[in-house]
Order: sequence, then structure tokens, then C-alpha cells
Amino acid sequence: MALIRSWVESANAPEGPFPLNNLPCGVFSRPDEEPRCGMAIGDFVLDLAGLEAEGLIALSGGPLLDVPFWNEVMAAGPQVWADLRAQVTRLLAEGGGRMAAPYLVPRAEVELHLPFLVSEYTDFYAGRHHATNVGTMFRGADNALPPNWLHIPIGYNGRASSVVVSGTEVRRPWGQLKGPEDAAPRFAPSARFDIELELGAVVGTPSQGPVTVAEADAMIFGYVLLNDWSARDIQAWEYQPLGPFQAKATATTISPWVVMSAALEPFRVAGPPRDVPLLPYLQEPGPMLYDIALEVALRPEGGAETVISRTNAAELYYSAAQQLAHHSSCGCPMTTGDLLGSGTISGPTKDSRGSLLELSWGGKEPFAIAGGSRSFIEDNDTLTLRGMARGDGYSLGFGDCTGKVIPALADPYKRT
Amino acid sequence: MALIRSWVESANAPEGPFPLNNLPCGVFSRPDEEPRCGMAIGDFVLDLAGLEAEGLIALSGGPLLDVPFWNEVMAAGPQVWADLRAQVTRLLAEGGGRMAAPYLVPRAEVELHLPFLVSEYTDFYAGRHHATNVGTMFRGADNALPPNWLHIPIGYNGRASSVVVSGTEVRRPWGQLKGPEDAAPRFAPSARFDIELELGAVVGTPSQGPVTVAEADAMIFGYVLLNDWSARDIQAWEYQPLGPFQAKATATTISPWVVMSAALEPFRVAGPPRDVPLLPYLQEPGPMLYDIALEVALRPEGGAETVISRTNAAELYYSAAQQLAHHSSCGCPMTTGDLLGSGTISGPTKDSRGSLLELSWGGKEPFAIAGGSRSFIEDNDTLTLRGMARGDGYSLGFGDCTGKVIPALADPYKRT
Repeated sequence: MALIRSWVESANAPEGPFPLNNLPCGVFSRPDEEPRCGMAIGDFVLDLAGLEAEGLIALSGGPLLDVPFWNEVMAAGPQVWADLRAQVTRLLAEGGGRMAAPYLVPRAEVELHLPFLVSEYTDFYAGRHHATNVGTMFRGADNALPPNWLHIPIGYNGRASSVVVSGTEVRRPWGQLKGPEDAAPRFAPSARFDIELELGAVVGTPSQGPVTVAEADAMIFGYVLLNDWSARDIQAWEYQPLGPFQAKATATTISPWVVMSAALEPFRVAGPPRDVPLLPYLQEPGPMLYDIALEVALRPEGGAETVISRTNAAELYYSAAQQLAHHSSCGCPMTTGDLLGSGTISGPTKDSRGSLLELSWGGKEPFAIAGGSRSFIEDNDTLTLRGMARGDGYSLGFGDCTGKVIPALADPYKRT
Repeated sequence: MALIRSWVESANAPEGPFPLNNLPCGVFSRPDEEPRCGMAIGDFVLDLAGLEAEGLIALSGGPLLDVPFWNEVMAAGPQVWADLRAQVTRLLAEGGGRMAAPYLVPRAEVELHLPFLVSEYTDFYAGRHHATNVGTMFRGADNALPPNWLHIPIGYNGRASSVVVSGTEVRRPWGQLKGPEDAAPRFAPSARFDIELELGAVVGTPSQGPVTVAEADAMIFGYVLLNDWSARDIQAWEYQPLGPFQAKATATTISPWVVMSAALEPFRVAGPPRDVPLLPYLQEPGPMLYDIALEVALRPEGGAETVISRTNAAELYYSAAQQLAHHSSCGCPMTTGDLLGSGTISGPTKDSRGSLLELSWGGKEPFAIAGGSRSFIEDNDTLTLRGMARGDGYSLGFGDCTGKVIPALADPYKRT
């Protein structure tokens, strides 16, 4: 597939991130305006609520767009999603009329909000290199992968209330900590605060009862970048036997733009060969991973940014469709706005690891950044995830998924 | 505290469950009516939406009651909760006028719905006898309690979409299973389907940032009975290292009535002595458990009911207030409608165990019921939880928390 040219000139840049092929979904406002649905196009946000009010966009079951979340469109299902993309493509394609021109708002002027209401958040563990790295650190190389890992897309329920949009500052958490050498636990700020580089799948159409992988794939509205902030010292002490809990509930940052599944269609790639065959309910009818280049950048306060990791979403062992199929397998109802984190996406090399835990090998091997080094996140560091799918003469992005870590409160129970 | 007598005679029965002291919160409808908020009183439901529309109840920020959920009242905070109780008590107290009489709907005529919108669901593990029993079965008596158990109210995030109201049938789930002797996993109906007898705390007022135990206690709107249906064979294979997931997501049944914290105030009891001191952020300023007698009954299709367990909510090691304080400790935002399961409440004796896993000791010691025996739940068994707080001449109940387990689908992927 090639670039779809637009009369919005900034949308035709081959390096993207927002050509007419993309049309990612966000919620925006200018000062003193109500947040509403828009799509990124070149240097602009297209005011979809405005176009719908003017009758230039009309969706089945509408109006759906003059609200500060995409959930109504997401719940409307794949035909409405396709229809919306077709209508916006007609409005913005090169050679067409410019009726939509008054609805282009410079991106520099807008604030971006959480693009959808997160109903529930589930975090998976589908990156084989990540699971192997973490397992090797904790259990040794011979027992790195848990026995179920090659059979189940392992996951746990996270905390939807912790999900914030890119740009939100993240306060270093306090928590209950106990190092292996400590006689007793203590309550203190986390000293091993970390990121996890993930792709998040956004469920559009709901389900009751188990769904197949193909059905699950069709339920997914789109994808975001997702940073699953993780307090490794809280995690180490709390996570047995019931899994991560407070270590993962301080914040989860997502990109401001949801890239629709339809836009990622040309970037589908097959999963890896399977060491052991998957059970039929997890087998994929076609390629369901995506070739999306990913990177993590770290910038200290007042310093220069260093890209500390470069990897690809195709490194995953399980697709979001497989995860969603497994999630529903016991009859768990899935709902519009469910967010499924992929798990940390590490590549096979040192410089493609998707967490500081892995990059510094548990803090034992600090890694270099411009002007210093890091084992874990230091106060006032800004961490940014980026993703880019590169096609034939065009590229799709998600917008930066960024957060600055501000110092822990001196006393978290002091009321001011 | 003694019985508060009402002119609704059926509310004055000393065995309860719905005297004027209780006033639990539910959502009800008669055929062809819209569900709305009501309170149980004797043999009736008091139509609060009707009283509010008529001006006989007026709440700050109202109207709040003509909706099919209690979340608006819950979000309004403790002063509104107290004011509502005071207004209803005045309307129904013996010696007062009977303006409310037209708003009494016989309970036998109504359908009860989920009493509130569950925003997120967290399940804890705060029953020491339960944790010890399960730990002994899985790891031996010497390592029964995990090392963190006496320091942390261990919990994991569950699935809010799985929460259903009492009376909803529960379909036996399929899942990925692998017994210790099996060479490979298979996808099959759960053969070890179970209950967990729990108390659920319902968060009313939201929070940002860590809250103290006292603050947490004041945020809790009330309590429900909660059955955390559990597929033990799915759980055993999936739960390492990230905790229970599909084993717990088929359904979670709650009682139709939320008993407000204020009604349970006279039943407060202190927690147990602590083997090791709790960290300050978990220490309780006063008694925060409740003396509530609990029981589990099992009834086979067409057979007689057997009470298979009798225990008490005072057997918990951690209170809901401690759990909520811990839940918020990393800065996790807590929201109106959060549901916190206590964890299985087992007593010290064989006949006070709160799950079939414990009652049958992992299936090795089937227990007797009228006309047969059980290790785990069989198809068409009905499981019922009951709770009763017994005061001076009166008793408070939650209504039955019941569910019938219907057979697994022959093919969960067949679309009819």
C-alpha cells in the first residue's frame, strides 16, 4: 500500500507520523473548549465533532463524536469504524473539495486528553525475550520461562484507574519494600522505579462468552503505545503468590492517539514458530502481529535525550487477538474500552530491551546515557516511548507516549 | 444498640433480616417498571425514587435515587449517607406518620438487580485459616503462609465485568487445564469448580493518593456478601507467576443488598493479635472487623439443602479498611464503585471452611451432603451464602447470595 495523498500538505511527508493512511483517534480541546473527538492529520487535528455537527460526517447511530471519549464509536462496531475512515478519507484526499478546511485545528494549539474511557485494564507477558530475561535474573537460565508460558498468553488484571494520557507527570510511589537481605519490610519510596515498553490493544465491540482468535481480532478497535510503570522493589516483595499489584498501580501511560486496526492492516506479520503447538482455541487463522518499530528515550532534567532501546512489536510471541481470545475463554465478558497491554516488548539484543530492569540487568550493569548512567529511573527523568510503522513511502505514528517522574512526596499521608 | 421499632410490623421480627436498623441498599423493579433505588424493610422494598420524586426524601445534590444504581449516592459521601438513613428512619419509625406507606412494595413482587455499577474489582486473601489451609495443601504445613502474608494484605485485581447479582445462573467454564501428571495441557470444562465465601466492601468516596486506614474506613459505603467462583484446575495451571486470571473471571456473585457501614457500626470487633507488628500505614485506630455470622449452603437439583460451612467475618486477619489503605499506598486512584473482596473466610475448624477446596481437602476427602457427597460443585448444584449480624433483639441480613451452576456448553465456540 502506498501513501494516500491529501490536500493537507503536511500529511504527505514520507516520514509521517500522520498521513491520510493513519487517521488515529484522539480527544482534544483548545483553551476554554470542551474536549471532543478528533483525528490527527499532518500538523493538524481534524475536528470530527464539528464536522458531524455540520453534517459533513454522518455515522449510523450518530451523533457519536461530540463527546470526550471514543467509546461510542468503539461500541458501534467495525462497519461504523470503516465508514468513518472512508468519509474522512474522502473529505481530505487530494483532488477533493476543501469543505473540511475550517475544521483543521493546528496540533500545536490543542491539549490532548485520554482518548477513551478505560473500562478495565489487563496486562500480559507475551514478550519472549522479556520473559526469558526476567526469568533468568530471578530463577536462572534453565528455568527462565514458566512451564505454562509456551501454552498460555499469561496475563493479570491491572488497574484501569491508573491509566493516564501521555504528558501526565508520574509521582514516584511509596510502597512496602523488603530486600532479600532485610530482616523486615519497611514503607518507603520505591528506589527501583521502571518502565515497560508495551503496545496496548483497545477493545471496541463487547463479547459474552468465549470468542475465537478471528472474532477477537475483529473486536479490536485499535492500538496505543503503553508504558506500564513498574516499581520493581515493591513487585519483588508483593508478587507471590497472587501476582503484581501495587507495583503496577501508580500509573500506566498511553499515547494520545489510538491507531485503528484498519490503519495497521498493511503491517501485519506472522508470529514466531511455536516450540510447542498451541491448543486450537489459540491458533491464528493468519498473521496477527504488527511490524511496528519501537523505541524508548530517556531525558534527565535539563539534559539531552538518549534512545536507550530500539525494538519491534513483531517480537511478541502472542498477538493481542490471541490474548483477547484467551481472556474470554472462561466466559469472562469483555467490554468496550477494555485495554490489553501486550507485555514488555524486548528484542534479542542488549540494546533492544524494553525495561530498565533488563537494560541494567537488575541494576547490576548500569547503562550509559548522555552525560551519565542509569540503573533505574531517577527523579525528574522523562521517559518517552515512540512507535512507527513504515510503509511504502509513508509512515504511521502514535504520537509520543511520555511521562516525567517527579519526586516522591516527603510524607504521603500529610494533608495540606 | 436495640431494635429501632417501625410501624412496618414485619420489620420488627427479632430474627431480621431487615429491621429499621439495617436499611440496606438495592435496585429493584416490578414487571414493566424501570429499575431504581430502594431499601429493604421487613417484607417490603421502600421505593426511594418514588419518595424523592414526591419530596418526602430530599438529599443534597439530588435527585440521586431514580437511577438503576447507587453510585450517585455513594459518590455523595458520608454526610449524605447519614442524612438518607436519618430521613428514612424518621419516615418509618414507630409512632410517626405513614406518608411512606404507598411506597412500600412487597418484596415478593420485585426483581432485584445489581445494586451498583462495579468500577473495578479487587480480591484479597485476608483469611488466615484459608491461606494456611491452601498453603498447607500446596506447599506443606511448614511453608503454608507466604513470607509477605503477615505484613501485607495480599490481593490481586479481578474482573469487574464478571460481577453479577444473586440469582444469576453461572455457566461452568471451559479453560486450559493441565494436571500434574498430564504431559500437555488441554482445553476442557473445569472439573474442579468451586466457591469462595467472602465479604465485599463497596467504596463510596473516591481518593487520589495514599489514604490512612481511618480515611479508608470512612470511604467505605457498605458491604455485600460475595462468592468468588473459582475454577481450581484452571487456577493451578495458570497462576504462576502472575496470579489468578481466567480461574476467577467467569462470575462473581454478590448479594442484592448493600448493608451500609453505619448499620454495621454496633458489630465492630477488633482484629486478631498480630504475630509481627504491622507497619504504621496499616495499623488500625480502632476495631474494624465485623461480627457477622456466615454460612454456605449447597442444594443439588431437586434435593435438600445442606449447610456445608458456618463461620464468621471476624475470622479475617485484615479489615477492608486496611486493604483499601494498602490498595491506595502506591498512589492508585480509588473510585466510587470499587469492590474489594475480603478473601475466603474460613474458621479454624473443618466445618467452618469457606471453600469446597478446603472442605474436601483438595478433593481427597469428599464431604457429606444430604443424600450424597461432594468434592467440588456438580452441575445444577445451587450454592448460597448467607450472613447475619445479631444485635440486642434484632438481626441484620444481606439477603441470600445465590447461584446455580449450569452445565458447560458442549462447544463454547459454536454460534447458534
